[in-house]
Amino acid sequence: MFNDTITATATPPGSGAIAVIRISGKKSLDIINKIFFPVKQKSKLKPYTIRFGTVKDQNEIIDEVLVSFFKAPYSYTGEDSIEISCHGSLYIQQKILNLIIKNGARLAAPGEFTQRAFLNGKMDLSQAEAVADLIASESEAAHKTAIKQMRGGFSSELQNLRKHLLSFISLIELELDFSEEDIEFADRKQLKELIENIKKHLKKLINSFELGNVLKKGIPVTIAGEPNVGKSTLLNVLLNEDKAIVSDIAGTTRDAVEDIISVNGILFRFIDTAGIRKTDDKIESLGIKKTFDKIEKSEIVLFMVNAGDKKAENKILEIQQKTKNKHLIVIINKIDETKPEILTGNLSKKNIKYIEISAKNKINIDKLNSLLAETVNYSSLNNNDTIVTNTRHIEALQKAYNAAERVSNGLEINISEDFLAQDIREILQHIGEITGEVTSDEILANIFANFCIGK
Amino acid sequence: MFNDTITATATPPGSGAIAVIRISGKKSLDIINKIFFPVKQKSKLKPYTIRFGTVKDQNEIIDEVLVSFFKAPYSYTGEDSIEISCHGSLYIQQKILNLIIKNGARLAAPGEFTQRAFLNGKMDLSQAEAVADLIASESEAAHKTAIKQMRGGFSSELQNLRKHLLSFISLIELELDFSEEDIEFADRKQLKELIENIKKHLKKLINSFELGNVLKKGIPVTIAGEPNVGKSTLLNVLLNEDKAIVSDIAGTTRDAVEDIISVNGILFRFIDTAGIRKTDDKIESLGIKKTFDKIEKSEIVLFMVNAGDKKAENKILEIQQKTKNKHLIVIINKIDETKPEILTGNLSKKNIKYIEISAKNKINIDKLNSLLAETVNYSSLNNNDTIVTNTRHIEALQKAYNAAERVSNGLEINISEDFLAQDIREILQHIGEITGEVTSDEILANIFANFCIGK
Repeated sequence: MFNDTITATATPPGSGAIAVIRISGKKSLDIINKIFFPVKQKSKLKPYTIRFGTVKDQNEIIDEVLVSFFKAPYSYTGEDSIEISCHGSLYIQQKILNLIIKNGARLAAPGEFTQRAFLNGKMDLSQAEAVADLIASESEAAHKTAIKQMRGGFSSELQNLRKHLLSFISLIELELDFSEEDIEFADRKQLKELIENIKKHLKKLINSFELGNVLKKGIPVTIAGEPNVGKSTLLNVLLNEDKAIVSDIAGTTRDAVEDIISVNGILFRFIDTAGIRKTDDKIESLGIKKTFDKIEKSEIVLFMVNAGDKKAENKILEIQQKTKNKHLIVIINKIDETKPEILTGNLSKKNIKYIEISAKNKINIDKLNSLLAETVNYSSLNNNDTIVTNTRHIEALQKAYNAAERVSNGLEINISEDFLAQDIREILQHIGEITGEVTSDEILANIFANFCIGK
Repeated sequence: MFNDTITATATPPGSGAIAVIRISGKKSLDIINKIFFPVKQKSKLKPYTIRFGTVKDQNEIIDEVLVSFFKAPYSYTGEDSIEISCHGSLYIQQKILNLIIKNGARLAAPGEFTQRAFLNGKMDLSQAEAVADLIASESEAAHKTAIKQMRGGFSSELQNLRKHLLSFISLIELELDFSEEDIEFADRKQLKELIENIKKHLKKLINSFELGNVLKKGIPVTIAGEPNVGKSTLLNVLLNEDKAIVSDIAGTTRDAVEDIISVNGILFRFIDTAGIRKTDDKIESLGIKKTFDKIEKSEIVLFMVNAGDKKAENKILEIQQKTKNKHLIVIINKIDETKPEILTGNLSKKNIKYIEISAKNKINIDKLNSLLAETVNYSSLNNNDTIVTNTRHIEALQKAYNAAERVSNGLEINISEDFLAQDIREILQHIGEITGEVTSDEILANIFANFCIGK
């Protein structure tokens, strides 16, 4: 447990109807009793109840507030905690914070409340990290992943792997104690099976990272095509259709030249659209080199052609050659103006996905959205599989996997117990790094520095 | 009471550690019971306690939250109310709001919670308005004024005036009923005394407005002086000294060409300092016309001269002539470089306030700050007098005063009861407009439209 008491505003920075100031630590009750004066009675604050009253500095009334008390260990941090709900003026927030500090608390560092929750055993490290992910979540997919991790889904999976390994390592370490007698306590066949199982499991988690990462940031999409095929019109239509959702998550940071939309709960990130948005289609050249740089960075390529373009088919085949490792969707635009000159049967034959639309008259835009969502039909999203989204986790998982592979190979060639034990211990360590059973101050400092203050 | 149930995020817009979503109205409990699942037990939410659990949409967990229940009439709005404290992701806030709306609430209009508090008799109109002032308060003085008004100080003063008038008007109306018999129920001498008292009181409140307004916006200050006297250096020193306080109230709107500092809890607003800050002192001309425009708008003029300027005294006398209705402070700068050539005794004789400083070496800046604060020694700030800060109130007070003056004159010339009664009723009406006893939907709509959503 910690000796000092911390405080911070927990609500978003700025002015609003109300703001919430948190205090956590041994002196929480002491401090609140010095500055808070309930209207009804001067009796002790009861845990998990709300009291109305005034915050005073000497005789000066600073605000009328609501105060809640959370008693250790049943609080977020595991310590005695107080939440003050005051009027959301910045002046008042600052004044109350200063008053709390004057009475014996100090300003909390970023993430310090959650760090205490971790160090007091209220959650493991991957759960603590999920709290930050949850706050930053901008889409259904990111939100789902974070909340599952925060509620301990990922942790219990890892604990499970650990438990099995721990029973084996104790047997192997027993063999080491009796090494001169050459006894095998640990059944090598069972161990081999377990390791293969663990490898499979780790691999699955590692593979989920690519998806996890993409879900967090949005799936990169490029709109390509010759000048005057309607790229900017399409972009505007897609963005406007989605206006509600985009403004819902307003205030989030994103690259200035990128636009993000959310379709069926999945974020799509349109790469380098500044050019498309600013310039008139007519003056924007195909810019071969630049376009292919963009395509390289994207997962989905929307290639636009005019319905009336008689040479479109060749262009499509050419782009298909250059986007073999991408999802290509051909968009045949302006079907309201001209009869399509493209034999779509040919596209089907070559397994090229296409859709006929009018960006200007918003024909088939819904279908295009469905096609986008369906193209990234990540099955993991729909079942309950864990998706790894954290770079620190993926590194640890990769290291655990490598150690597991060494165990696996070692078993093949009947390696000695001490090498085996060492590699198994390494798997355990790397898994333990994720949940925080094995960790260093440096790692902790790094993790919590990325939190916002007040969490 | 209202039939519909309203909801909104009450904390500042944006993403943070936590956010608070409010629900108020008859269906509050109904709605929360449909979407909130306490971890511990499924029993009813008890008033004024906090429960931990999950918010779910069907089977999908949206967040882990704390829920508090405020039972009518002991809540802010006077209705059953719920506060949900969730993780501060914008996505989650939006998702929970949508879920609440889907279950029967509607999004609250700006200020609608406070409007309900007013209409349900939890506070009068001037108190409701003070809530908005309190949230917007940026300085100690503005904060003090708002909190006093919110706690009903202003209202009880007005109620007091009303009460006395009401007893008189009933007597005068009785006279009207018996008008043919020419009986005086209301003692004219007492009425005259009362009216004079009321006039005095109203006048005091009206006079306080100028101060109130200035306290809200900051007291306008101009820095004037010839080129190269150190105006920009002084401005920077004043602003930097005050850096902490200014950044405390960051995010507030202010005119781009104005700088605001807070000295002893009073805001000072430096007018049109853009020129001073951007241009080098040397190239900035005295700009006679422009300078005097600035001085015209300000309450305090800081006139800077160089300590070594032998002609300074004449310049000072000239500026004194042109700033007779202003507070003039002469700043003798660069006392670290040269011996002052100014006979300060002459300034004292002419009652000119002056101070010798070095802006560059920050000599006597503290003293200058004290001098500033002392120059606006508004005694009202230090005693408990009410300060009127609201334009609507000042208009009503002015109208009430005019009616009181008519009563006063009417009493002189022994006017008939019906005219007297009409004028007294007008005083009552205008006072009632402030507290909301007499009001119209239009006035209410106007007032609450200026609130933020969620309050």
